Amino acid sequence: MNSSNHSKPLTHPVLEQYFPVLSWLRSYSRQDLHGDIIAGIITAILLIPQAIAYAMLADLPPQLGLYASILPPLIYVLLGTSRTMSVGPVSIAAIMIASALTTPEIAELGSPVESAVILAMEGGLILLFMALLRMGGLVNFISHPVLTGFTTGAAILIIFSQLPHLMGIAKPQCELDATCYVQSLSQFNPYTLALGLGSLFILLLFAKGMTPLLKKWSLPSPIIMAVSKSAPLIVVIVTTILATHFDLSENHNVKIIGAIPAGLPTLHFDFVISDKWRLLLPYAGFIALIAYVESVAIAKVTAMMRNQRIDANQELIALGGCNIVSAISGGMSVAGGFSRTMVNYSAGARTQMAMLIAIFILSLAVIFFTDWFALIPKVTLAAIILIAIYPLVKIKNIYHTWSYDRDDGIAELATFLGVLFLGIEQGLMLGILFTIAATLRKTSQPHIAVVGRIPNTDHYRNIKRHQTETWDNLLLIRIDENITFSNIGFIEDFLINELTSHKNLEHIVFILTSVSHIDTTALEALENIKQSLEKQGITLHLAEVKGPVLDKLEQSRFLEQLKPGLVFFSTHEAVDRLTKDLQG
Amino acid sequence: MNSSNHSKPLTHPVLEQYFPVLSWLRSYSRQDLHGDIIAGIITAILLIPQAIAYAMLADLPPQLGLYASILPPLIYVLLGTSRTMSVGPVSIAAIMIASALTTPEIAELGSPVESAVILAMEGGLILLFMALLRMGGLVNFISHPVLTGFTTGAAILIIFSQLPHLMGIAKPQCELDATCYVQSLSQFNPYTLALGLGSLFILLLFAKGMTPLLKKWSLPSPIIMAVSKSAPLIVVIVTTILATHFDLSENHNVKIIGAIPAGLPTLHFDFVISDKWRLLLPYAGFIALIAYVESVAIAKVTAMMRNQRIDANQELIALGGCNIVSAISGGMSVAGGFSRTMVNYSAGARTQMAMLIAIFILSLAVIFFTDWFALIPKVTLAAIILIAIYPLVKIKNIYHTWSYDRDDGIAELATFLGVLFLGIEQGLMLGILFTIAATLRKTSQPHIAVVGRIPNTDHYRNIKRHQTETWDNLLLIRIDENITFSNIGFIEDFLINELTSHKNLEHIVFILTSVSHIDTTALEALENIKQSLEKQGITLHLAEVKGPVLDKLEQSRFLEQLKPGLVFFSTHEAVDRLTKDLQG
Repeated sequence: MNSSNHSKPLTHPVLEQYFPVLSWLRSYSRQDLHGDIIAGIITAILLIPQAIAYAMLADLPPQLGLYASILPPLIYVLLGTSRTMSVGPVSIAAIMIASALTTPEIAELGSPVESAVILAMEGGLILLFMALLRMGGLVNFISHPVLTGFTTGAAILIIFSQLPHLMGIAKPQCELDATCYVQSLSQFNPYTLALGLGSLFILLLFAKGMTPLLKKWSLPSPIIMAVSKSAPLIVVIVTTILATHFDLSENHNVKIIGAIPAGLPTLHFDFVISDKWRLLLPYAGFIALIAYVESVAIAKVTAMMRNQRIDANQELIALGGCNIVSAISGGMSVAGGFSRTMVNYSAGARTQMAMLIAIFILSLAVIFFTDWFALIPKVTLAAIILIAIYPLVKIKNIYHTWSYDRDDGIAELATFLGVLFLGIEQGLMLGILFTIAATLRKTSQPHIAVVGRIPNTDHYRNIKRHQTETWDNLLLIRIDENITFSNIGFIEDFLINELTSHKNLEHIVFILTSVSHIDTTALEALENIKQSLEKQGITLHLAEVKGPVLDKLEQSRFLEQLKPGLVFFSTHEAVDRLTKDLQG
Repeated sequence: MNSSNHSKPLTHPVLEQYFPVLSWLRSYSRQDLHGDIIAGIITAILLIPQAIAYAMLADLPPQLGLYASILPPLIYVLLGTSRTMSVGPVSIAAIMIASALTTPEIAELGSPVESAVILAMEGGLILLFMALLRMGGLVNFISHPVLTGFTTGAAILIIFSQLPHLMGIAKPQCELDATCYVQSLSQFNPYTLALGLGSLFILLLFAKGMTPLLKKWSLPSPIIMAVSKSAPLIVVIVTTILATHFDLSENHNVKIIGAIPAGLPTLHFDFVISDKWRLLLPYAGFIALIAYVESVAIAKVTAMMRNQRIDANQELIALGGCNIVSAISGGMSVAGGFSRTMVNYSAGARTQMAMLIAIFILSLAVIFFTDWFALIPKVTLAAIILIAIYPLVKIKNIYHTWSYDRDDGIAELATFLGVLFLGIEQGLMLGILFTIAATLRKTSQPHIAVVGRIPNTDHYRNIKRHQTETWDNLLLIRIDENITFSNIGFIEDFLINELTSHKNLEHIVFILTSVSHIDTTALEALENIKQSLEKQGITLHLAEVKGPVLDKLEQSRFLEQLKPGLVFFSTHEAVDRLTKDLQG
């Protein structure tokens, strides 16, 4: 902590806002380094097979995943506000890239590698543009149900996309013909399938059974973690040795990764001149949106646990930068990866130093081991993907959501089915539209209650839910939502309905405890309501008007026009005054 | 009133809901009839020239306006919930029809009359479909500022469309070339212009000077009204006599209406088979939307003044029926007309009987006077349109709206400029999108306040606005909006920010007075918040949870998970309990 006092003058608040790295770097301690080194090594063990696997998932050469794991997380170290998020290739973005690249009009332009790089570049630019407009908040408009429906649907698509790899067959060209699909699957390659099932077995064993076993041996927890998370690396090593030793690729047609250029990525800008930019833009938009929403969600989960802050707008800048750098260094679109981030966090990462260490290890691998990577059987990666993706399938969640909130349930189901049957982007779009429509409908039907006094107190509650005291000449109406064009009609109808059942009214009080905003439409309508009540001999009053609302009403002519109606500080004051008036 | 007791058994509540006519018919009195006859005559005087003028405004033959004024209001008498609204051709719908018919791809299909009839039919079907989905409320999503911006823009377009008629020139084919436009105008027809300016003068005289003059003569007010509202009829008669007497049409090329088929409209269904339906659908949608929104607004204004009710969904059915019948009888799209409705109301109309009388008079005119209508100079109608439309131009309103609420001001200005420069439908669409975006943005930034006790009371207010008492170990946070996916991120950020400035916290209470709904996303986030607070030794409580919210929370696992956090009835109870806990 002393060190921070020394280095404080060296940093600057604005600089620190745009380079959050400075805020942890200046108080970095030896203890932090200890946690970060272990977490970095464990994360690297997971990162290497994931990088290659997610490139394969996107139908791209493995180096696009590897390159996306070097410079982008480095940029995130500089610009990101999360101290533990691991940025790199992620499964959902990968399947979205695959979906974009197989769209006929894009596929026919050729060079999927160039297309993938442009997708990353455009995504990065879109995120930076959104940062410029300070739209970090608007992206909240993907709700959890829509996101869950989306990831469930995408995960199922991913599983289907990996089954052919697992069975060693070419991708079935069947469209929606189930018989054809089953027939394709029946021509499986037994060697490939054996390697695949073996990999799945080892992965499941490590995922389910290893941790309890190691705990029984009372090993130190970082080692338990390192061992249990090394499953993907272990299956890669084992299956690669098996495949190479028995020359399964030559003799039995077991597909392997194939040649990967050795060495660190070099920077390229030749994709800037391409006629694909316009066609790819909408896909890039969807990928960027999902990448951003998922990343912020992940970052928030870990930050909350340590009372750290995520700045949504700075994350737009950071992820935008990561994607642009990924494109320039020849990588695919990147985002924060859920499993890697959780592993990094659980392994004790204190700062992004852990990611720097992971990047260093991965870079060594890219420089020295690419010849070995070339020999990895594709089926092993398919197995790794399947195990990684399976937890994302949460079909039961649709039922849970539905039973709590029907609108959310419908949105989740629509997104899920949309992704499966209409397409990834269409499903997401459907979910977003559903949520907006539901939001609009809800704000147009605000909760309004006639309230009365709970006897012998100064608490006022809904007369339908509580035993309350009311008065013939006074009607207390509590409006529980901002009053705007979308619900003023509903409020008018409610009022007219109440008027028909209260005959001797002299005063109506609108209780505005919950009202933070009254828009122009509502203000005009309130003036009309006031006037037509006046014609019927009823005075309109307001109570519990919040400060900002009162300021705006004062600024308009409304308070002037309300007279002889009054604005009461509390409902109790209104009742006290208006019922005394009646008695006097 | 006695009669209502007799006839009550004859009607049925459900029947009355779908045929609101039954509710006034069974208590109809001689006194009602007196008011209705006078109002009917005055409304008819206004209706005849308007019907012909608005057909001309839509670039259609006059009978499309006349036919739209016969059967549609008759259907409204049966189905409508407003007792005074006058349904028929209206200016805004007319300019929208003109805009649709002059769109190149629609114009090239020929037969504008058929297109106009299909527009009315489709509009009617859309309204009925919306009634089926009970979407009466969703249409509230056109705010007053958008509507005002829209009508102002449309009114200006109408004025420009009538200037050539007023000056007796062909429509300038200039596009956006101002020099060309001025040149065209300079080739005016002096006879036409003289008739036009004369008409304008008489109309303005009646509008501004006649009522005070007649009042000075202390004539009975129905007569004053009849005289002052007969201005359009008078200029039509005077200019028609002048034009016919001097044979201005033959000798000086003053354009007249031309032949109109005599007699009542006959029913046709031949437009049902046409390939225009798909192309016209979006235009029909916009026209129906505006027709509906304007009609309901007008109906509500007059209903409110007499404490009557407008049922938004029944209005969808009524206006849908009116437009379908208009199409079948060869008329154009219809809606409630503001000026006619206000005249009808002010002239003392009690029920739709007034409109029945107006329809009867208009029918007589269509049967017997169409030969005379043929001789009306077009310039007279242009003058009538100009005077009728001018009050709709409310450019200053944009400034007023802006100064009260910037979002509303931007929406109004955008709609206005959009209508003028992008097109009528585009402008409207722009306004609607602006409002939705602003609504979403607002709900994503809810008002949240840290509250404290006003000393020696049990009132709790924002600590930033009032002198309040607070406690080191207890933080009271009032959330003033429904907690949903769109704002839970904002709430989390607010909370994290507060946590950094309160170090000795043991309890946080969320005060939910204003919260009527917590959605799935927010519920999950609240569970996470509760858990991360727990890790920091802070207990989360709720207070003033509304009934429906509490019901749903009980139904989910949340209240179970909240423990040891409690749900307090009032903020005061929470403070009482939690600060005692601290003392004890």
